[in-house]
Amino acid sequence: PFIEELEMSLEAIEKGGFDHFMLKEIYEQPKVLEDAVRGRMSAEDGWIKLGGVSEYINKINSAKRFIITACGTSYHAGLLGEYLIEELSRVPVEVEYASEFRYRNPIISENDIVIAISQSGETADTLAAIEIAKERQALIYGICNVIGSSIARATHAGSYTHAGPEIGVASTKAFSTQVVILTLLALQIAEHKGTITTSYLRQVLFELKNIPNKIKETLKLDAQIQEIAEVFKDATNFLYLGRGVNYPVALEGALKLKEISYIHAEGYPAAEMKHGPIALIDEQMPVVVLATNDSAHEKIVSNIMEVKARSGKVIAIVNEGDTEIAALADYTIAIPQTEEILSPLLTVVPLQLLSYHIALMRGTNVDQPRNLAKSVTVE
Amino acid sequence: PFIEELEMSLEAIEKGGFDHFMLKEIYEQPKVLEDAVRGRMSAEDGWIKLGGVSEYINKINSAKRFIITACGTSYHAGLLGEYLIEELSRVPVEVEYASEFRYRNPIISENDIVIAISQSGETADTLAAIEIAKERQALIYGICNVIGSSIARATHAGSYTHAGPEIGVASTKAFSTQVVILTLLALQIAEHKGTITTSYLRQVLFELKNIPNKIKETLKLDAQIQEIAEVFKDATNFLYLGRGVNYPVALEGALKLKEISYIHAEGYPAAEMKHGPIALIDEQMPVVVLATNDSAHEKIVSNIMEVKARSGKVIAIVNEGDTEIAALADYTIAIPQTEEILSPLLTVVPLQLLSYHIALMRGTNVDQPRNLAKSVTVE
Repeated sequence: PFIEELEMSLEAIEKGGFDHFMLKEIYEQPKVLEDAVRGRMSAEDGWIKLGGVSEYINKINSAKRFIITACGTSYHAGLLGEYLIEELSRVPVEVEYASEFRYRNPIISENDIVIAISQSGETADTLAAIEIAKERQALIYGICNVIGSSIARATHAGSYTHAGPEIGVASTKAFSTQVVILTLLALQIAEHKGTITTSYLRQVLFELKNIPNKIKETLKLDAQIQEIAEVFKDATNFLYLGRGVNYPVALEGALKLKEISYIHAEGYPAAEMKHGPIALIDEQMPVVVLATNDSAHEKIVSNIMEVKARSGKVIAIVNEGDTEIAALADYTIAIPQTEEILSPLLTVVPLQLLSYHIALMRGTNVDQPRNLAKSVTVE
Repeated sequence: PFIEELEMSLEAIEKGGFDHFMLKEIYEQPKVLEDAVRGRMSAEDGWIKLGGVSEYINKINSAKRFIITACGTSYHAGLLGEYLIEELSRVPVEVEYASEFRYRNPIISENDIVIAISQSGETADTLAAIEIAKERQALIYGICNVIGSSIARATHAGSYTHAGPEIGVASTKAFSTQVVILTLLALQIAEHKGTITTSYLRQVLFELKNIPNKIKETLKLDAQIQEIAEVFKDATNFLYLGRGVNYPVALEGALKLKEISYIHAEGYPAAEMKHGPIALIDEQMPVVVLATNDSAHEKIVSNIMEVKARSGKVIAIVNEGDTEIAALADYTIAIPQTEEILSPLLTVVPLQLLSYHIALMRGTNVDQPRNLAKSVTVE
């Protein structure tokens, strides 16, 4: 038989035709979100069943408080989890940096549920926080990506995110799947507690089922986002503003830019801008505004007008058809509309692509940014 | 009678010999902290009595949760309040941006105590948050500076900070007095609940009584801080790192620099740095490290080593006599030692002075920075 040597490195094969792991992982999001919900919900039949939750449903149902602990990107997923669980199931949620939690004398009781989130399942600070919470008899629920990892083993129950191996140091698909798990968790608790109606549950599940296709639509904006990246690639600073469920997305978008492009980007709740950060705004300052929240549309319009009044450059992520914001912003990225609580799964995508393209144009090592490790296994 | 016209404007008289209101207000801190505690505690006799607390002590004592809501600098005081109340009185505390709180459907019950913090007492978002909390029957406790202000009138109980008029847009003395009130509040609840011992209470009160003198000592470092400002006045970015009670101080220090010098400064919990911000660090990046926490000294030393390994420039705020950190940092500001939970009252002072001098050197309008209002009475 005629044997021809394949002129591709193993790495190139693993990248599946993409220039970088990060880009491949961004594009994998439609698929991994399907994997993350498979067997865990049915929109048609209106049910949710996260293995780890069903097993402890009575304890989870009677929880007085949830405490979410994590670091970095997983911490941002946790902040979003706070909005979802509080909004849907009406139980108070506290989110803590694992590194702060572990060095305090945290208030935890056996009636609390501690949710620990870590892609690698090896994050040292999160693991240490779990040990403290276990000593105090709390139920620990883990959300990890790596099967059999230390955190997965140290927790009482949990759900894997099924995102597949994430190689890029800047987390993308792992974040999205963490958010999906937290959404299912919040919905399952809410259904069990009766704080949402069956018809609302079905409506959200149907919409969740449509999210992979809507991410595919969003990914088609890549060329437009690349053009915007070209305009702002030399910026030294960025602000990211969001409200409600999109406030954690603003933090996450800023973190992506920090991590791989080394641009100082910072996220803020949009309305806090006038309490300080607005002093930074001049014609040199690009401001990314997450403007898809239907419930706060008017407020976001006025935030954008404040930025424009100080000559800031506005890049707005809006719902398709939003001509009001398109008329105000310098650049508009229009994504498909969805349920507001699910919108982070779409709004985060253009932010991931924006950081990717800016980093690439600046010539940084996108998959292995300086100073950063994929999994922080030291304190 | 011989009448000579005084060659001073009213404004100059009001500034009391200082070039700016902000500087005057920084220097007033020893005095206003004495005013803030006068009649409210006795170190000798070991008692604390905040008028507003005593009146509702049973309701406060049985509170299941405290929710602190505020904006800007007051929000940072609130984050510090969370550490103090949780550590001392062992009741869970949630801190929320007023602007986010009001637009959610927040979880509040009649067993919750909502603490609203605002210097002016007119902050629109905070006032709106109070109205929501009142509808849900929570007890509202106000911490305001301006007597008879809208928030002072809208709350059920409260304590004035007695900082006197604050004219500089960037808050300094109001922050310190807010922190003192929150400290007294935490101690009074803790004493009533029996979660601290009488001897510990006395120890903290004696130390609190010494704080004004220790601030005076700290203010003597002004000339040294001015020299450091000269070195970094052209920096485009800054990071501020702190742990535990000094994490909110890191946020506040960064906010001061943003507000009046228009430098993009950002605060982080020190251990979160390795989850992203560390990618920003190179020889251009000054990093201010709050390094006075006795309980985390070793961890802070390793954070500083991480910054130095990436050629960052470290300005460390340390306790007098700390030669270990002095040997590692590029610049060291040594302040008097105190109880760890009171240390923010000292560590914030050099950060205020650093921003003041940098802003002055950059020629900004220190008392009236661009884009900012002293009291944000719009949403």
